[in-house]
Amino acid sequence: MPSYKAPLRDMKFVMQDLLGAGEQLGALPFYRDNDTADTDLLNQVLDEAARFVETEVAPLNQVGDREGCVRDEHGNVKTPSGFKAAYQKYCAAGWTALDADPTYGGQGMPHLVSIAVNEMVTGANVAWGMYPGLSHGAYSALHAVGTDELKNLYLPKLVSGEWSGTMCLTEPHAGTDLGIIRTKATDNGDGTYAITGTKIFISAGEHDLTENIVHLVLARLEGSPKGTKGISLFLVPKFIPNADGSVGERNGVVCGSLEHKMGIHGNATAVLNFDGARGWLVGEVNKGMNHMFIMMNAARLGTGLQGLGLGEVAYQNALAYAKDRLQMRHEPRVSGEEADPIIIHPDVRRMLLTGKAYTEAGRALALWLALSLDTEQHHPDEAKRKEAGDLVALLTPIAKAFMTDNGFNVAVQSQQIFGGHGYIAEWGMEQFVRDARIGQIYEGTNGIQALDLLGRKVLMDGGKKLQKLAGTLQEFAEENEGDEHIGEYVNQLGKAAQQLGSLTMVVGQKAMQGPEGADEVNAAAVDYLRYFGHVVYGYLWARMAKVAQDKIDAGQDKDGFYLAKTQVARFYFAKLFPETKALAATIKAGGETLAVDDQAVFGWERALATA
Amino acid sequence: MPSYKAPLRDMKFVMQDLLGAGEQLGALPFYRDNDTADTDLLNQVLDEAARFVETEVAPLNQVGDREGCVRDEHGNVKTPSGFKAAYQKYCAAGWTALDADPTYGGQGMPHLVSIAVNEMVTGANVAWGMYPGLSHGAYSALHAVGTDELKNLYLPKLVSGEWSGTMCLTEPHAGTDLGIIRTKATDNGDGTYAITGTKIFISAGEHDLTENIVHLVLARLEGSPKGTKGISLFLVPKFIPNADGSVGERNGVVCGSLEHKMGIHGNATAVLNFDGARGWLVGEVNKGMNHMFIMMNAARLGTGLQGLGLGEVAYQNALAYAKDRLQMRHEPRVSGEEADPIIIHPDVRRMLLTGKAYTEAGRALALWLALSLDTEQHHPDEAKRKEAGDLVALLTPIAKAFMTDNGFNVAVQSQQIFGGHGYIAEWGMEQFVRDARIGQIYEGTNGIQALDLLGRKVLMDGGKKLQKLAGTLQEFAEENEGDEHIGEYVNQLGKAAQQLGSLTMVVGQKAMQGPEGADEVNAAAVDYLRYFGHVVYGYLWARMAKVAQDKIDAGQDKDGFYLAKTQVARFYFAKLFPETKALAATIKAGGETLAVDDQAVFGWERALATA
Repeated sequence: MPSYKAPLRDMKFVMQDLLGAGEQLGALPFYRDNDTADTDLLNQVLDEAARFVETEVAPLNQVGDREGCVRDEHGNVKTPSGFKAAYQKYCAAGWTALDADPTYGGQGMPHLVSIAVNEMVTGANVAWGMYPGLSHGAYSALHAVGTDELKNLYLPKLVSGEWSGTMCLTEPHAGTDLGIIRTKATDNGDGTYAITGTKIFISAGEHDLTENIVHLVLARLEGSPKGTKGISLFLVPKFIPNADGSVGERNGVVCGSLEHKMGIHGNATAVLNFDGARGWLVGEVNKGMNHMFIMMNAARLGTGLQGLGLGEVAYQNALAYAKDRLQMRHEPRVSGEEADPIIIHPDVRRMLLTGKAYTEAGRALALWLALSLDTEQHHPDEAKRKEAGDLVALLTPIAKAFMTDNGFNVAVQSQQIFGGHGYIAEWGMEQFVRDARIGQIYEGTNGIQALDLLGRKVLMDGGKKLQKLAGTLQEFAEENEGDEHIGEYVNQLGKAAQQLGSLTMVVGQKAMQGPEGADEVNAAAVDYLRYFGHVVYGYLWARMAKVAQDKIDAGQDKDGFYLAKTQVARFYFAKLFPETKALAATIKAGGETLAVDDQAVFGWERALATA
Repeated sequence: MPSYKAPLRDMKFVMQDLLGAGEQLGALPFYRDNDTADTDLLNQVLDEAARFVETEVAPLNQVGDREGCVRDEHGNVKTPSGFKAAYQKYCAAGWTALDADPTYGGQGMPHLVSIAVNEMVTGANVAWGMYPGLSHGAYSALHAVGTDELKNLYLPKLVSGEWSGTMCLTEPHAGTDLGIIRTKATDNGDGTYAITGTKIFISAGEHDLTENIVHLVLARLEGSPKGTKGISLFLVPKFIPNADGSVGERNGVVCGSLEHKMGIHGNATAVLNFDGARGWLVGEVNKGMNHMFIMMNAARLGTGLQGLGLGEVAYQNALAYAKDRLQMRHEPRVSGEEADPIIIHPDVRRMLLTGKAYTEAGRALALWLALSLDTEQHHPDEAKRKEAGDLVALLTPIAKAFMTDNGFNVAVQSQQIFGGHGYIAEWGMEQFVRDARIGQIYEGTNGIQALDLLGRKVLMDGGKKLQKLAGTLQEFAEENEGDEHIGEYVNQLGKAAQQLGSLTMVVGQKAMQGPEGADEVNAAAVDYLRYFGHVVYGYLWARMAKVAQDKIDAGQDKDGFYLAKTQVARFYFAKLFPETKALAATIKAGGETLAVDDQAVFGWERALATA
């Protein structure tokens, strides 16, 4: 049976050694005033979260996969054994309230710590973690744009975890393309709306963990314009609350079925049928897409964390197996047994180091973004807020796509270390692979993330956000180009960052050439995101290596933790970063080779499609 | 529900247009004499196989996954609904006898056609196809080294499919490392041996398709030397046959349990307990590993075909979905609907073309090897036989590893095209991914294939086999370097082939430097195999493009098939082949960055391991 241990040492390294979180959070009055910026407190919270997650959440991971969720004929859904008890303990211990607004019962802790806790939960049991995860998304959207009346009624329940939340976007014919949704809203004339339609793929859409479920639903108000500009956001509770917050009459939303899927079996993926269900408008009419993006950005970072958490747990278990499994003899021998532990074989080490390198860089990125979110929301200086917000906007698609792609690949390589045993359910590795796969698909496929990055975040503002980040990298490179330890990395990084700029120019120029320009962006986007991801990870690895080397030089490396950082950095630049060489070539190749003859290559007639 | 259509047009293109199979087979007396070299006949066989596979085998793929195999308390195993009926029809139609020796009831058809049929079966239903597939492996080993008595008793039953076969290698503590197996054989003094031990991961190890199962078992004869040099191969039937070929008493081998696994649910993966089971020696004492390799080489090419078949079927279904699914609007619009078919979006085309490019090159490689197998076994000229055998030996690890890695990646990308629907079981895409995953693991993990390629096939003979192939490529490159259509590809290919040579030299020189040399080979092997794979696929794509262009120039491209070949070739060199740039860098980086501090990085004490 697989196990999970929260990577506390590395989390604290990133927070304190790399990001200087103590000082940074200390500059934010909100946390200072709430007494939630203190480093010792943050560390205590992390330690306590680790204890909870390791003992209460991780042991439910395999049972969740095996049992899945079961729907009865009335549309009620039973979660796997132990899920409810663990959820109740989680709420009772206040984890759902961690970074929530104290006005509504939250603890007002920084995102920095809640995102670290989120990584732990998702590494221990991603299917279970999605229940509170989605509630948090609903909380964020409602908190940002809900009326005081809605907020006062719903937020305390979401914060305490008594009620959970969902986001209802997808319809059978409309996934990526939310502009064509058909769920409709009719004004009841009493401040409420009647919501009718079918939503699919609703994670945590129906379950037995909470007494009520708060659906945030995209629908088209009658008379609204076509496309994304005619979509509004509605709150549709499963039970309509009474004014005192108790649960009242059942609303017209029913779980029509659950999907049978590749993984995350412990999370109920529901088809929800809304039949004149009573809903309340959240935010402004026809601004639903904008409001939903508040949830989606959080959800995207949260999805990235799934890649991180699953990569981490897969790596941990592969590492344990590699030390334990004796197979083939290495020269010189390292064991007195008939064979040596497979960790001695270089190719196994390559796979392990790949896991470690991607996971630790991913953690650095996630926590950097978390701290930037804190800064964006709470820094007294507007320029600082904007700068942090721009960074979050730019790097969120990378956090989502690059982290889930790497997480999946790390899970696959970690499974590979187990040989045939990796394919067998009881070892748990194949579940990590199946669970990791969804992160690349939902909350906007990774292809859509790439379009968001290149089209919206980079090109739409003429490259301003990119240039700002490039400036940061440039500064770092200039400071360290002669460094005896990291100079070589900085050199590689500098060249790649420069090339990222020129690749951006090339695609950007093509992008301006009419409709074909959009095709060029579309053709380059996925490779571009991966290239960009390596530049970001390269920057973080170079910085981590520098910080670690300073600790070593100061005689502070008692347990070899910092030595490991410097060696994994070296591995990253030698074995993973060179992927940029291939990506540069494929980006430069452009979209021309994709414009193949439809009929000859795909047996597809455009004429038929347009007929 | 997914569908499968045998890629007949492409198979015939590769056989006739690319490989000139008619002429090549015509030069082999065995096929000439058996009247099995005729192109029209081969085409008829392919057409008939396609019909059978599409209508009888493919429809059982999802039911096989859903139901799996079920073992009762007595150790009997029931295969999924429909598996037995389809198997019986398959045998009755003579498919199990296709390329078998006419002496034992076989049809004496070339490997060229049987391997094409094998691709169809595996694309339609890999779990089902493994039953006859493993029988074929057992047939090959027994045919090669069995006594006449054993051959006369067993081969007709294996050829007719009345009995099936298995290969029993792995034990709980011994997977890759067969030298440490513990299953023992004791001489009964009557020409038989008593076999005792536990074998795991035995595909098709127990089932209800046939009246008898013929296990080929690796075991150590009492008194034999340690390691691989003390292992012999034994035939252990489930029921001991009577002299007339009827089934006699039950032998002492029982299925102890079935594994619950990620995929290939329709194939029974058995734990087999041998308790003094009666066995017969196959081949020579202590030569079991050599004999088993006869099966394993066939099994490795067969496993490569799984990657090919699963890539093909995943691609086919993704293509159909991409034409059908309307999502987002493209400029210019290609549909009168509210959204356009996603096949118009360049990134979707990129994923589709990736599938097509890898699959078609894989098919060319598989059939090239198949024809080389035919030549190796039946060419009258010994030098030709040796040359063909060397090519098969060199390229088999590439066929196994590169084809299964690509097959898995193509399945994953094809699943990605479905968005959220790809994660849902009913669409069938997630099954392709789960089923494809095992090909990278079994029959020697892909890491082991890479060691086989670089260590044994390339370096052990001082690069002679490699040089021979390089000569072929060189010749092709010189002939075509100025070609207006393929000159550019040939140019890229030539540079890469040259670099492959120099990378081989670099690793080869390091390999000779004592124990660390072995580590250098181990460190480079996986990247080396992938680089080599691209050189082979590049060669095949350039050749296919040339053949296709000639057809176009001759006005013979009625349906655009040849145009498609030229365009996919262009895509391959623009978007996939550049991976070699990254691989060259990571190979050159060597093993140094893997030699990290064990304690600091992995928390592993060598001292403890050696204590």
